[in-house]
Amino acid sequence: MVIPVEDAADPRLADYTRLRDVDLRKSMEGAQGLFVAEGEKVIRRAVGAGHPVRSVLTTAKWLGQLADVTRDVTVYLVSDEVMEGVTGFQVHRGALASMERLPLPPVPEVLAGKDSRTGPPRRIVVLEDLVDHGNVGAIFRCAAALGVDAIVLSPRCADPLYRRSVKVSMGAVFAIPYARMTDWHDGLAEIRAAGFQLLALTPDRHATALGDAPLKERVALMLGSEGDGLSSHWLHEADLPVRIPMSETAMDLGVDSLNVVAAAAIACHSLVARG
Amino acid sequence: MVIPVEDAADPRLADYTRLRDVDLRKSMEGAQGLFVAEGEKVIRRAVGAGHPVRSVLTTAKWLGQLADVTRDVTVYLVSDEVMEGVTGFQVHRGALASMERLPLPPVPEVLAGKDSRTGPPRRIVVLEDLVDHGNVGAIFRCAAALGVDAIVLSPRCADPLYRRSVKVSMGAVFAIPYARMTDWHDGLAEIRAAGFQLLALTPDRHATALGDAPLKERVALMLGSEGDGLSSHWLHEADLPVRIPMSETAMDLGVDSLNVVAAAAIACHSLVARG
Repeated sequence: MVIPVEDAADPRLADYTRLRDVDLRKSMEGAQGLFVAEGEKVIRRAVGAGHPVRSVLTTAKWLGQLADVTRDVTVYLVSDEVMEGVTGFQVHRGALASMERLPLPPVPEVLAGKDSRTGPPRRIVVLEDLVDHGNVGAIFRCAAALGVDAIVLSPRCADPLYRRSVKVSMGAVFAIPYARMTDWHDGLAEIRAAGFQLLALTPDRHATALGDAPLKERVALMLGSEGDGLSSHWLHEADLPVRIPMSETAMDLGVDSLNVVAAAAIACHSLVARG
Repeated sequence: MVIPVEDAADPRLADYTRLRDVDLRKSMEGAQGLFVAEGEKVIRRAVGAGHPVRSVLTTAKWLGQLADVTRDVTVYLVSDEVMEGVTGFQVHRGALASMERLPLPPVPEVLAGKDSRTGPPRRIVVLEDLVDHGNVGAIFRCAAALGVDAIVLSPRCADPLYRRSVKVSMGAVFAIPYARMTDWHDGLAEIRAAGFQLLALTPDRHATALGDAPLKERVALMLGSEGDGLSSHWLHEADLPVRIPMSETAMDLGVDSLNVVAAAAIACHSLVARG
């Protein structure tokens, strides 16, 4: 059902309010159990992953493209101006969908491979307290594309279903199983108890080069936050600190680190390539 | 010399006008041979790389931090409001410097290792027509940190000295030698003639897995633009198309690619790790 709306303040558009206001969206999406998918491709992937559609917000130009997806869904049809007025920015991909979140599985279920297409995970990534939604989305995209089996988030890690995470992930947040720890302090012990070797990625020059680390049957690669890296508690909990070898020449010139997405990409690739 | 300025329209601040207006900045910086470095760390690296400082624009809060660098330089001291009024955005890192560009060396000089600290380059990256300055900066950072020896840009590739490139690179644009081709059509032939094997990174499933590619003594890794990848002309010119192995499961779910920075990070690491 297509409903034209001409007022950005219309309460029916409330799901789409101020999409770049992280604090507002966090409390609102949490309270209402929704998230927003942006762009045709991402919306299709979210639907494919089983998320019910609450409504779609789009402009005349993009209306036709989602016709098959929106057959039984309320579609609010607005002008570019109203779209920008509600969301607070220019939506280049033309279509937004408000979707229902599904309950996240508990960590043990993900570690056991329940609902996984490929059985119990052997190679997983554990993210501690990343704050940037774009980075979380980019790491999900890398991990999924390269063949990492699952992701576990620390309790405070940024939300993979925030609009920007979903967008940057190109929908990969719907393609890789993930769970969120409830307990930061004892969360790693639970992963170890499930048989995972805990590798902590660090810039420490004295850590073992990633390619030289002896790998066990099940491996969890731990990645820390953008600024501070892994907490000392998590580093202490790890079985082995590992590093990506850096150029001595570059270190002398002060180029001594990679951003967390580049580091994650290299580490995931290295882990999966070693079988 | 510290000069307080209270008007964002003051012509002495012209170097810092509308820093997010890519078109304006491109023509202005090209015509005047300047670029803008943002933040203390990046400014220091630019100075260290020999770029003369035209002036510095900063606020009272950050004035002291650059005292040693700015001793013989004109420093315009402004309020946060004037800073935002001139530049068009909130400058979180507090200090901007307008710096002089230096003439880029011709491609053959970079390939010969003239002015290189480590002799003639063996592992280089060639970028074709990337449009996003953040991506160019991120690739420079990865390449420098991982030990790639030099970078060659296609004639239309985005500028590494645009403010955002410099910032995202964390100053790595000053740490790795680079040059820009003058001729897109024949530029690769020149690199091959210098003895480089040309590897074209592609998502093509039939390409050789990067880790299985036989590497020659000198290797140039070609990376294409964000949307379209390498042009067919450049793919045709390459000695060998190479790919990063992707997960079959993810491909079935439509997660079938990496962003160009993640791909570059993995490919640079793989290339350098193989010696």
